[in-house]
Amino acid sequence: MNERLNVLAIGAHPDDVEISCAGTLARYACGGHAVTIAVFTSGNMGDLDVPPDELAATRGTEAEAAAELIGARLLWGGVTDELVFPDEPQRRLMIDLLRQADPDVIITHSPSDYHPDHRYVSQLVFDSYFQKGLPHLPHQTRAACRFARAHIYYMDNVGGIGFLPTEYVDITDVMEIKRRMLGCHQSQVRALSDLASTNALEMIEILGRFRGFAAGCRFAEGFRREEGFQRGLARRLLP
Amino acid sequence: MNERLNVLAIGAHPDDVEISCAGTLARYACGGHAVTIAVFTSGNMGDLDVPPDELAATRGTEAEAAAELIGARLLWGGVTDELVFPDEPQRRLMIDLLRQADPDVIITHSPSDYHPDHRYVSQLVFDSYFQKGLPHLPHQTRAACRFARAHIYYMDNVGGIGFLPTEYVDITDVMEIKRRMLGCHQSQVRALSDLASTNALEMIEILGRFRGFAAGCRFAEGFRREEGFQRGLARRLLP
Amino acid sequence: MNERLNVLAIGAHPDDVEISCAGTLARYACGGHAVTIAVFTSGNMGDLDVPPDELAATRGTEAEAAAELIGARLLWGGVTDELVFPDEPQRRLMIDLLRQADPDVIITHSPSDYHPDHRYVSQLVFDSYFQKGLPHLPHQTRAACRFARAHIYYMDNVGGIGFLPTEYVDITDVMEIKRRMLGCHQSQVRALSDLASTNALEMIEILGRFRGFAAGCRFAEGFRREEGFQRGLARRLLP
Amino acid sequence: MNERLNVLAIGAHPDDVEISCAGTLARYACGGHAVTIAVFTSGNMGDLDVPPDELAATRGTEAEAAAELIGARLLWGGVTDELVFPDEPQRRLMIDLLRQADPDVIITHSPSDYHPDHRYVSQLVFDSYFQKGLPHLPHQTRAACRFARAHIYYMDNVGGIGFLPTEYVDITDVMEIKRRMLGCHQSQVRALSDLASTNALEMIEILGRFRGFAAGCRFAEGFRREEGFQRGLARRLLP
Amino acid sequence: MNERLNVLAIGAHPDDVEISCAGTLARYACGGHAVTIAVFTSGNMGDLDVPPDELAATRGTEAEAAAELIGARLLWGGVTDELVFPDEPQRRLMIDLLRQADPDVIITHSPSDYHPDHRYVSQLVFDSYFQKGLPHLPHQTRAACRFARAHIYYMDNVGGIGFLPTEYVDITDVMEIKRRMLGCHQSQVRALSDLASTNALEMIEILGRFRGFAAGCRFAEGFRREEGFQRGLARRLLP
Amino acid sequence: MNERLNVLAIGAHPDDVEISCAGTLARYACGGHAVTIAVFTSGNMGDLDVPPDELAATRGTEAEAAAELIGARLLWGGVTDELVFPDEPQRRLMIDLLRQADPDVIITHSPSDYHPDHRYVSQLVFDSYFQKGLPHLPHQTRAACRFARAHIYYMDNVGGIGFLPTEYVDITDVMEIKRRMLGCHQSQVRALSDLASTNALEMIEILGRFRGFAAGCRFAEGFRREEGFQRGLARRLLP
Repeated sequence: MNERLNVLAIGAHPDDVEISCAGTLARYACGGHAVTIAVFTSGNMGDLDVPPDELAATRGTEAEAAAELIGARLLWGGVTDELVFPDEPQRRLMIDLLRQADPDVIITHSPSDYHPDHRYVSQLVFDSYFQKGLPHLPHQTRAACRFARAHIYYMDNVGGIGFLPTEYVDITDVMEIKRRMLGCHQSQVRALSDLASTNALEMIEILGRFRGFAAGCRFAEGFRREEGFQRGLARRLLP
Repeated sequence: MNERLNVLAIGAHPDDVEISCAGTLARYACGGHAVTIAVFTSGNMGDLDVPPDELAATRGTEAEAAAELIGARLLWGGVTDELVFPDEPQRRLMIDLLRQADPDVIITHSPSDYHPDHRYVSQLVFDSYFQKGLPHLPHQTRAACRFARAHIYYMDNVGGIGFLPTEYVDITDVMEIKRRMLGCHQSQVRALSDLASTNALEMIEILGRFRGFAAGCRFAEGFRREEGFQRGLARRLLP
Repeated sequence: MNERLNVLAIGAHPDDVEISCAGTLARYACGGHAVTIAVFTSGNMGDLDVPPDELAATRGTEAEAAAELIGARLLWGGVTDELVFPDEPQRRLMIDLLRQADPDVIITHSPSDYHPDHRYVSQLVFDSYFQKGLPHLPHQTRAACRFARAHIYYMDNVGGIGFLPTEYVDITDVMEIKRRMLGCHQSQVRALSDLASTNALEMIEILGRFRGFAAGCRFAEGFRREEGFQRGLARRLLP
Repeated sequence: MNERLNVLAIGAHPDDVEISCAGTLARYACGGHAVTIAVFTSGNMGDLDVPPDELAATRGTEAEAAAELIGARLLWGGVTDELVFPDEPQRRLMIDLLRQADPDVIITHSPSDYHPDHRYVSQLVFDSYFQKGLPHLPHQTRAACRFARAHIYYMDNVGGIGFLPTEYVDITDVMEIKRRMLGCHQSQVRALSDLASTNALEMIEILGRFRGFAAGCRFAEGFRREEGFQRGLARRLLP
Repeated sequence: MNERLNVLAIGAHPDDVEISCAGTLARYACGGHAVTIAVFTSGNMGDLDVPPDELAATRGTEAEAAAELIGARLLWGGVTDELVFPDEPQRRLMIDLLRQADPDVIITHSPSDYHPDHRYVSQLVFDSYFQKGLPHLPHQTRAACRFARAHIYYMDNVGGIGFLPTEYVDITDVMEIKRRMLGCHQSQVRALSDLASTNALEMIEILGRFRGFAAGCRFAEGFRREEGFQRGLARRLLP
Repeated sequence: MNERLNVLAIGAHPDDVEISCAGTLARYACGGHAVTIAVFTSGNMGDLDVPPDELAATRGTEAEAAAELIGARLLWGGVTDELVFPDEPQRRLMIDLLRQADPDVIITHSPSDYHPDHRYVSQLVFDSYFQKGLPHLPHQTRAACRFARAHIYYMDNVGGIGFLPTEYVDITDVMEIKRRMLGCHQSQVRALSDLASTNALEMIEILGRFRGFAAGCRFAEGFRREEGFQRGLARRLLP
């Protein structure tokens, strides 16, 4: 891939992208591609004690730190955590986010993910990837970007719930960057530990190694590609 | 199962739960578990002649009688029949219903059911089972219940449309209770007979016997379990 | 099939029906059945240059010309292109369209189509086919039509994305009519050529021949049937 | 369907065809089509006490009586029960059976059936339906029949294990014939009762009624059609 | 489960069972159930240097040591490694193995596993689980065992290729036993390291932890249940 | 891909590879990779009149001419047409063919193809791709090749029966070579025309254009990749 790609990874919550595709993003970044991370909600509900506003502020700072590690631009949707809906206002928001990123490649949640916010972000991406290039859509804040059909890759989830990858990226060489990116999300590492007795950092070791066994390398991330009409599918845009 | 479980069965219309899982609920009740039946709509559209309000009143009384037969608590969503949508107001309502029931086990429609109200109730349950335990969700009427991950079981439908069970419950010993529970829904038994030439009471005999052939007992009810992250899936909570 | 059927084909955009099922509609029309074509949006966004209102007017005229070729009635939903949502207002609209057509057979997009408007029209049809016959639904403009359970057939798409047909209709004898029907949509033929370097008229040749190889005739259209409760499925209503 | 069809139903054991498609065969027979029933094994293992030879003789007589009720020709493969294999000798046998029947329609077990003999008969049919018309195949006993591509329909099974029908046949009017056909298989009715506490005659009532709920008639049989290259799929050959 | 179950785990090669279900077997053993491990091949091909006979002898000794750790009986099929076929001789062998074990529960490979020997062992089990109880089958060495319909559970594989579990067993408390069981297979641990740069002992840590994330416990093993006619499916026989 | 790959395309009959992947092979050849075409049967049954030996000779000459056009080596299995079985002798043959080709990439039929010979060749490849590198397998004619895990890609079929591609190769620039390669198979072009009224050369135009619509190029070939344990899946080896 000699061209420079615009790569957009969009997750529902801060740390979603870090868990499921930070290694792939690091590889894109190392390869000179332009990486954008978008977080659709503010992640403000994920703690039983910390008040929403305070939590959103903390997670905002953490996400910034993680994105900086690979020089990625960070965009926010700002939707209230747990309230993602594939309705008209959020569709409009998603289209504007995609227009800002003008992506060649979009990585997002799988439609069969275990969390409703994840599923609906995935659905909103599908509902917007073509629309981002149509100039006459009403009520959009941003002008249409290139009328190009981005490749959509759906990412794995914690536990591999409902997900059998068909594409893999070898992230062995960038695993340390992935660890550090997730490590920036201390508030969530703590919450997962408290709420689910789960060590998030250990979790990505396990996930990476498990997919690595299938892919034939030490650490891997798994994906599935969305099919679509005339989307230049005759090549792989993954690193 | 020595612990006492909170079991919630939630259907779109009065009599949905009776048709598809009353036997299983009866077995839970007999086993000393706390059973709640929730009906998301008022069932007020299911007759070509009877006016909505009158129909809703009748069906309310019938559902109460059915629930009483197994000592189940009855909750109502009160949504207009045929107008279930997985949108924000109904999500909020579903979360509040789940908080009232505080369930360990949720039984609901399958996402591939043949009726849109059934599908959307199923989707709303999926969208709310985790959220019920988050204390900071805005605009909820009820306080968060336990932060516990309930098991979700999807129930069979009339005709087995799009449904291959993977779990079965032997309801032979409680079949008579199931018959009586459905028998309480006289207005619907009559409507099914008028609109679809279907004898609802015969229908549950057929459904129970058919699944019984697969399961190896006289009468059975069939289910599928929703997969999810860290939901204590290493055991079966069905009776 | 001696009875005269009411056949409704409903697509998201002008030309969708022409591309995927015009041959089948022509055969219905030739067989003396009553054919209605419904277009859910005005198709006003599908050009990068032409303003929405002007485009809608043009496409309206084109669709009329196409429908006339087989003597089909044409209905419009009038929703803004790219903004189909399975929400309450559009559900109401879909129910009213179905009530106007009072169909025995409904042909529409597949739920796994590659375009969000197509998917949501499909979902709205599924959400309305039973409801069209319920007389007490609030806020509808039109009175309930027959309480009959229409057969739903999902149609193929350009490129066969996510679609394996299980039913075929031989359209060899009416292929010329199909060509002329699509030929009426000059604005869209031009747009597809500009935006996607695609010759729409060649496209339906390819699609028809490809499905014909599977079906064993020169030109065919492919479909899948939606399963449903008590819908008279023990016969084929396709020509 | 004005033409007279050669219809072949082929099951692994005597009574398989009676259980799953006797109603459909009766309708074909009533419609003047030529019906052949083929039984691939002698059914000689299905009893814990009766010796194989004696059992085979009994079941042969029973199958003859059942076939006679609809004037069907009866063919035997004579393979030892429980020893169906998709190997070369049995392939040869299957091809010869198909050549004898020269079918336009073949009804057989589903590849996802619960019994290995059923699955392998299904596989052998798939492996032979095209080959039956090739004149130079070595070591065949019978000459090639018409080089025609028969439609293959897979039939339902007891309990609906792994089977969701996509086609239905209304057998209400011929249900009594189906009962009498199965009633001829007294040795198997007794064995099912002894080994599995199952009343076979009740079983077909349940199966017929259950599929009837889905199809919208009193009694129905369910099928799936095998896809294939150029097999004239643009029409339904089921009654 | 108060009854004492006969549990049979059957794998194609020595160490297959240890990798995919040793934890579950350990739990059965701890619960007082009778555990049999059967190995269908001698495992004599799995090394590029060691001659087959020598390798078979070594692996035999290793498998004995592993089985002893949980007091399991060990049976051998003795088929040449890499030459498993679902043909008549190996079917006969499988039936005899099942008759020796007389199982209530059978755990074996999944039909969608990545290794042909695994797939064919799975197929042979499916082809034999019912036949084991038929007394008149010709050419068998062993007398029929109980005419009982064993539950079949398909086990996970390394890398989770083509496998999404629907049932989980919590093996946290017996993980150390699993490690020691696999540790007995030193020749294979070495071969995997040489041929595939894979540390087999680390591999089961990863697999167990990964499935544990889904199941909500520290270490888990995942399974899918085979559906079948009248097999007493209305309960879970897994520990 | 800087390395030089050994590419093996293996079909059941002469012309199978030409129809489904000749374009991809031409691209490999143009890229300097070593291409081998293997034909598993002699193709001697595919004509109603020409005797088998004469037909085999003709098709042998035709296949040679086609392979020469891209400088591919041609291997023959020599199995009798229509008699492919996944049994031990043919497994041995397949392993020897793979050892001759020593492939990095294998392209073959899909397991869900419409022709039994195609399905069984696919199964034999799956059963042999790992075994080709094991030196101690008995009764093989050829020595083990590299112990490397080849990527397996399943190819499309005429009519796209049961096949949804997930990978595409743009063959626009080599379409003329593909036409000429298929054009070498005059005996089969004639047979398809006589037996199935099909113009084989037109058929590959349609297939190529149809997949091209999905892939976004003029002519494309579609594939699916077989998943497997540790097979270096973290990259695409297709051109």
